[in-house]
Amino acid sequence: MALQMGQKTAVQRLALIGCGLIGGSFALALKAAGAVAEVTGSSGSPASAHKALELGAIDRVASSAAQAVQGADAVLLAVPVAATQAVLEEIAPHLAPQVLVMDAGSTKRDVLAAMQAALPQHLGYCVPAHPIAGKEKSGVAHAESALFKGRRVILTPLTQSSDDAIARAQQLWELTGARVSRMSPLQHDETFAAVSHLPHLLAFAYMAGLMDQPGGEALLAHAGSGFRDFTRIAASDPVMWRDILLANRGPVLAQAQAFGDALEHLAQTLRSGDGAALQAQIEAVSRRRSAWPAA
Amino acid sequence: MALQMGQKTAVQRLALIGCGLIGGSFALALKAAGAVAEVTGSSGSPASAHKALELGAIDRVASSAAQAVQGADAVLLAVPVAATQAVLEEIAPHLAPQVLVMDAGSTKRDVLAAMQAALPQHLGYCVPAHPIAGKEKSGVAHAESALFKGRRVILTPLTQSSDDAIARAQQLWELTGARVSRMSPLQHDETFAAVSHLPHLLAFAYMAGLMDQPGGEALLAHAGSGFRDFTRIAASDPVMWRDILLANRGPVLAQAQAFGDALEHLAQTLRSGDGAALQAQIEAVSRRRSAWPAA
Repeated sequence: MALQMGQKTAVQRLALIGCGLIGGSFALALKAAGAVAEVTGSSGSPASAHKALELGAIDRVASSAAQAVQGADAVLLAVPVAATQAVLEEIAPHLAPQVLVMDAGSTKRDVLAAMQAALPQHLGYCVPAHPIAGKEKSGVAHAESALFKGRRVILTPLTQSSDDAIARAQQLWELTGARVSRMSPLQHDETFAAVSHLPHLLAFAYMAGLMDQPGGEALLAHAGSGFRDFTRIAASDPVMWRDILLANRGPVLAQAQAFGDALEHLAQTLRSGDGAALQAQIEAVSRRRSAWPAA
Repeated sequence: MALQMGQKTAVQRLALIGCGLIGGSFALALKAAGAVAEVTGSSGSPASAHKALELGAIDRVASSAAQAVQGADAVLLAVPVAATQAVLEEIAPHLAPQVLVMDAGSTKRDVLAAMQAALPQHLGYCVPAHPIAGKEKSGVAHAESALFKGRRVILTPLTQSSDDAIARAQQLWELTGARVSRMSPLQHDETFAAVSHLPHLLAFAYMAGLMDQPGGEALLAHAGSGFRDFTRIAASDPVMWRDILLANRGPVLAQAQAFGDALEHLAQTLRSGDGAALQAQIEAVSRRRSAWPAA
């Protein structure tokens, strides 16, 4: 099916593989935009698929990912990243030519590798995507059509991705209300190692260091609003973050090293008691953070 | 003047040394509670003192700290911590016997030492305090009577502090709406090194590591809500944090060491690729942080 740009119904049949917060919100957003005629959903958890049906995010429950993609003209994988390659292998024999295949994972070189391994004949229609959106709570019950409104979505096209497929992916994400930009998979993973994955690692390590010391529990009772915000991301989903950190381990460890050097420099200044140097170092970061644009 | 417990006017004349966010809010809160008859304020910045007068936080502007304490039955020092000892030395000759002297600084062993050095004859009436409250914005223009409502205030009495002085200090802070508890100065400083000062140091170091790498500015454009919350405290006031970190440098550096060990442990697990161990480590901290009570 050719894309009919300018028409609102950008997709006739969307296959949603994985009916959680992200997948459910994507389907609800396209429906709210009148951009999709029908959504077929499958999920590793039948309860999630039926909840998605009940909430109107999908119109039909498929018994498997393979069944979901039959007759679809676009596919969104919104599954835990560790499941990506297995799902791609499952759907590979059932994909019609020119069906757009997207994912929504937080790391992209692993998705690229999975697509190359599982869909070698279909790479022209693969367009990995990373929506920078989420919530404290996961699950389709928290899905909402406005989740992506005003948020950024990064597309990381393969060198084989066709211009047509990239344009279709961009159109769909824009129809959810997102602002779409592009990066290479490597640039994406290095960028998010620095601005997202490392802060998670540091928040996990900080909580661990606090909890594991004598009297750690008593310390937690005295924590205030600085602690609350600094450690909010330490409450993130362990399986999701295990997978993100493992998938992006090289860039994350490189960023951890850069951080360690900066911390040692600051600690050395503090140890030396050089107040002017300490103030100058804090001033530089405080000024930059104050100027950082809010979302 | 003896404290008349049960009467609402707990203080006849309060001397407020330092007319900023904390001092202004303290005076406004006591006035709102009908707990103070008159407030005399002094400030290193005449503009701040006059703004405090205009806002009704104080009733009279004194030309100096020494003048402010004359005729006062309670004194609150709410000045930058680096100024504490000089102010105490200035007011020492002008303090009537039994005048309650409190501060509001974020570190307490340095205040203890300053009181011992500057007010050796008056230690029975010294009760250092640390209100766990603040705002993004400083200055008396942002002061409000409700700033301490429901927030915690830690009193760190000296071994010489009299029961009467401690009770008076506790009553005043409770009249602002705060929940008051007690610690030793050392226990206070070790506790806040762990739950407040170290997170600031880490947020400063993280921002520095990000900014100082090639392409750092471009990275910042891709940061999202996790980054926003994790680095909020990196925008803190440089002079205030220079002084807190220097005043509490031993405990802060000890906490930085404990954090470094925890980070290295987590990085080692990630480097080894042991997914089960990584998940277990993240689960432990995620569960604990999720259970952490909101303010």
